[in-house]
Amino acid sequence: MLLGTVVGQVWATRKEATLNGLRLLVIQPYLKGGGDSAETIVAVDPIGVDVGERVLVVYGRAARHAIGRGHDIGFQSAIVAVVDGAEIAGDSVGQTAETDRRSGAKPGRKT
Amino acid sequence: MLLGTVVGQVWATRKEATLNGLRLLVIQPYLKGGGDSAETIVAVDPIGVDVGERVLVVYGRAARHAIGRGHDIGFQSAIVAVVDGAEIAGDSVGQTAETDRRSGAKPGRKT
Amino acid sequence: MLLGTVVGQVWATRKEATLNGLRLLVIQPYLKGGGDSAETIVAVDPIGVDVGERVLVVYGRAARHAIGRGHDIGFQSAIVAVVDGAEIAGDSVGQTAETDRRSGAKPGRKT
Amino acid sequence: MLLGTVVGQVWATRKEATLNGLRLLVIQPYLKGGGDSAETIVAVDPIGVDVGERVLVVYGRAARHAIGRGHDIGFQSAIVAVVDGAEIAGDSVGQTAETDRRSGAKPGRKT
Amino acid sequence: MLLGTVVGQVWATRKEATLNGLRLLVIQPYLKGGGDSAETIVAVDPIGVDVGERVLVVYGRAARHAIGRGHDIGFQSAIVAVVDGAEIAGDSVGQTAETDRRSGAKPGRKT
Repeated sequence: MLLGTVVGQVWATRKEATLNGLRLLVIQPYLKGGGDSAETIVAVDPIGVDVGERVLVVYGRAARHAIGRGHDIGFQSAIVAVVDGAEIAGDSVGQTAETDRRSGAKPGRKT
Repeated sequence: MLLGTVVGQVWATRKEATLNGLRLLVIQPYLKGGGDSAETIVAVDPIGVDVGERVLVVYGRAARHAIGRGHDIGFQSAIVAVVDGAEIAGDSVGQTAETDRRSGAKPGRKT
Repeated sequence: MLLGTVVGQVWATRKEATLNGLRLLVIQPYLKGGGDSAETIVAVDPIGVDVGERVLVVYGRAARHAIGRGHDIGFQSAIVAVVDGAEIAGDSVGQTAETDRRSGAKPGRKT
Repeated sequence: MLLGTVVGQVWATRKEATLNGLRLLVIQPYLKGGGDSAETIVAVDPIGVDVGERVLVVYGRAARHAIGRGHDIGFQSAIVAVVDGAEIAGDSVGQTAETDRRSGAKPGRKT
Repeated sequence: MLLGTVVGQVWATRKEATLNGLRLLVIQPYLKGGGDSAETIVAVDPIGVDVGERVLVVYGRAARHAIGRGHDIGFQSAIVAVVDGAEIAGDSVGQTAETDRRSGAKPGRKT
């Protein structure tokens, strides 16, 4: 599973039928120390997450289970949790990067 | 799922029989900030995408479902969506890099 | 399988139902020579591991087996072993980085 | 699927029984712009490819299908196509790097 | 499949029951040109390999097949071959890095 931040959304009209009605969110993986990853992944969102929130993303069978539509689906990654907070290597990671800023915490620094 | 741009096409005569009749497109992964990835992946195209268009790519079972030929196929990645647009970390990403240029937007910059 | 160190924990209230009651630990992959990886992965912990301990992490079916809840689960990685020690390229790797320090060993150096 | 160049071969006497009689080729992934990747992968070759040729490689179920021996096999990647040519980001990529040189084209440059 | 060198071993007392009795080896991926990768993977060893030997490693179903215990196992990677030698991009790669040195060959250089 991957810890990341929702940084955006993708819209598509021409698509696999099983993608209809699903939100497609862009997630940036979390790097220890608060660094900024250039890579992103796209995951479907069955929970209703806002841009900026920190989430857990899964792939494959776990993603199919999270969406609950059986095996024959045309996607492979899904959000399975909205993170309330985390403690990583002595650093506090809040629900959003915005929360970190308002609390005076630098991303990747212990508050 | 991976967000990327179709940057080319591959032709092959000697190949696994289940690849017959399928277009093989080369996709470059999207990097946040508009950077240029050297890595590429090859995916089959059941939708009919043009070079330059931005797409979503899936692997494994999701790719087999998108092509609709059951389990016994000799490929593993497929295009499942043509992207109309995206908002990523405050940047607008258009349907193609060309669209971004014509609208005066720099790739990776908000228009 | 991946050798890594438990560097933290994630808490989440809104989540896939099959994640209820499972600890979500953040693991940093081991790098040869004792270097520090910025990437992390999140795995469920069926063993009861402490932050700082070195562990083995698996993905997919092996993770589902380790948790013992069959196929329909919304996660994909799990801790399957707590490492007592390792010898890697002539270096001794202890149960925790703390153990390495107390024994006067530098991480990634033979004691 | 991965586009790459066959750069070598591996020989092994002590091995999983299902690897008997299969050629094990070393493939270097293609990088956009003609760069040189240090990473390699090893794939079985059911087609009969020469060193220097450009190929498509698949993993997992697609590889098992390409070899045609059902599910119980001890390998995971296979060559499924020999590339005749490709157009990638305006560059022509020939059947081999040698072809590119004889035609006066620099790898990664349009001929 | 991955070509790599066995660089160490891991010991664990608290572990998934299906790991009992299996050797856990640490493998460093081969880099073209003889470079030194910091990343490592851990694989079970059904063959009886020594530290220093070059091996092929597989993941997932292929690993389960190599161990021969069916599907319900708590690991995901296994060694399936001990490499006698390889020719990669004109370089000879011996059975061990030690062999390369005794023959006067620099790792990654043709002998």
